[in-house]
Amino acid sequence: MSKEAMLTAELVQRKFDQKTKPVGSLGMLEKLGVQLAVVQNTLSPSVSRKRIGVFAGSHGVARRGVSAYPAAVTAQMVQNFLNGGAAINVLARHGGIELRIINAGVEGELSALHAPNFRNEPVRQGTRDFVDEPAMTEAECETAIAIGRSELEKAKQDGIELFGIGEMGIGNTTSASALCAALLPTPVEELVGRGTGIDDEQLAHKIQVVKMAIALHQKKCHSPRAWLAAVGGFEIAAMTGAVLAAFEHRLPIVIDGFIATAAALVAIKENPKVQSVCFFAHCSDETGHRAVLEHLGAEPILSLKLRLGEGTGAALAMPIIEAAAKLLCEMATFESAGVSQKEERKQRAS
Amino acid sequence: MSKEAMLTAELVQRKFDQKTKPVGSLGMLEKLGVQLAVVQNTLSPSVSRKRIGVFAGSHGVARRGVSAYPAAVTAQMVQNFLNGGAAINVLARHGGIELRIINAGVEGELSALHAPNFRNEPVRQGTRDFVDEPAMTEAECETAIAIGRSELEKAKQDGIELFGIGEMGIGNTTSASALCAALLPTPVEELVGRGTGIDDEQLAHKIQVVKMAIALHQKKCHSPRAWLAAVGGFEIAAMTGAVLAAFEHRLPIVIDGFIATAAALVAIKENPKVQSVCFFAHCSDETGHRAVLEHLGAEPILSLKLRLGEGTGAALAMPIIEAAAKLLCEMATFESAGVSQKEERKQRAS
Repeated sequence: MSKEAMLTAELVQRKFDQKTKPVGSLGMLEKLGVQLAVVQNTLSPSVSRKRIGVFAGSHGVARRGVSAYPAAVTAQMVQNFLNGGAAINVLARHGGIELRIINAGVEGELSALHAPNFRNEPVRQGTRDFVDEPAMTEAECETAIAIGRSELEKAKQDGIELFGIGEMGIGNTTSASALCAALLPTPVEELVGRGTGIDDEQLAHKIQVVKMAIALHQKKCHSPRAWLAAVGGFEIAAMTGAVLAAFEHRLPIVIDGFIATAAALVAIKENPKVQSVCFFAHCSDETGHRAVLEHLGAEPILSLKLRLGEGTGAALAMPIIEAAAKLLCEMATFESAGVSQKEERKQRAS
Repeated sequence: MSKEAMLTAELVQRKFDQKTKPVGSLGMLEKLGVQLAVVQNTLSPSVSRKRIGVFAGSHGVARRGVSAYPAAVTAQMVQNFLNGGAAINVLARHGGIELRIINAGVEGELSALHAPNFRNEPVRQGTRDFVDEPAMTEAECETAIAIGRSELEKAKQDGIELFGIGEMGIGNTTSASALCAALLPTPVEELVGRGTGIDDEQLAHKIQVVKMAIALHQKKCHSPRAWLAAVGGFEIAAMTGAVLAAFEHRLPIVIDGFIATAAALVAIKENPKVQSVCFFAHCSDETGHRAVLEHLGAEPILSLKLRLGEGTGAALAMPIIEAAAKLLCEMATFESAGVSQKEERKQRAS
């Protein structure tokens, strides 16, 4: 962190309070503007350049029938991202958001894929099945974290003012549920959901899978990072790295859905201060997301019942964060606009 | 309504279900896209041209101390809108939304104001105090409704694909509360809020004002429109007219906050089918808004604790509606992208 004088939230709020509107009437937009100004350490925050990194990884646990889709979909969707046909492509174009696709550990042959926004750096062709053994070695986990860190650092160098994290990985709600179950007091049942759309039987099985994983690893795992290696995924670890680096570089970061929030949770459990740079895009429809957000005391911007991932919620929330910045910068004050203030009425009445 | 074959919601949903995402995983965006497609009667809806009309009017009841701000603020804020310094100006610019300011009945001299997007057509310099007498005559109410209708028709002629309504009028939460109390079974206390920020004493007084108004007018008022004339406002009646015309012209219309919702409520009580073209932008922090939305079974897009009016919630919701349209039009299908579907897993397993 820099040693320069830091802006306080109170000072930013005072600027908002001079704008031509009743005090506090812009609700969450004022909170977002204040947080943004404090993170950027300026009374005139800007988020004109925005980028989302979509981190992809395959999961060994997917072979256990925890997802409604075959594991091969992870690689197919990376191809879809590069072709511009996925939901996140549409929403990123709509929001004026740059998109980067990062293969952090997808199973399958992606080396033939070339695109200027594609980073093909798989740590391994998918994690191991964490019901049998740790998903990653410590070294693999660190490599994945470093990928996310370097994405964030590249964004900073490129002049990006708001960075978002999203993901793709068949099986990764199981991984995220296991991570959250390990790091929170919440019962496993409340943290496991239907992901891409499994039925009741598969849901019961998925809960069992998470419980088995927790039982297997709990003796050896004594830190958030150990749990990340044991039951996480390469894309999840990369997002954890991005969040950690966002704090170090004071780059505001938008956390997408349940899986991205699980990645942020690891970073926040390592260092609670990290949360100060995090904007939680939305509360998704995936069971467990609300519980984790509530544990963090995080107020999500949107609640659109999304359960897709890919950074789709982040893409919709980023323009709202940008709107908050513009309100703080562009609105007239009562004085400049010649608008009577609340106090005057009382003076008149006296 | 046209006699051509109308698109069904099922047909639009089927198009969504072929896109590369789990069925239903785009949550409310799918609902918005379906509604939009049905209103526009096309599988490829478009909302590239967007406009918000901000309707302004002064309220006789404002002299009773029901607002935290002096009545003169209504005219001052119209000036602020024309100068581009208000919150709605910032948000409209941000969202690529055209803005029209309509003086439907503001007290004060606005005739010196000229701007291409300003319509200066006051029915009267403010309504009468509806605690003493009807706010408007029937003829005045019809004139105000016609202003809103013609704004909508102008938008349609101009090629606008999504129209939003917002308002400005010191005292108009009192008017909206009275209207909702008259048209809904909800107790008055649950429909009266703090508006721009009144204290407990003023709130109790405001509740009394609404109760007195209901008591005075209920013998003579036997229709939503009679109530609109009795306790409404010129800007509210104009918005009611815009909503009625939106249905007739099949132009999707975005309803902003509590006051705009009260205006829409009048139109919907006259003809429930009107609701099919209405998109409810957000649930505001103003007491009563949630109750009215719940009565209508309306699902607001955003919930950002706004309580400013001006169309600010509509300006933030319109890009999300546009996103829904783009997803329906631009996303790849499982077939076109070569992505495996959910069913394949079961086939493999068999």
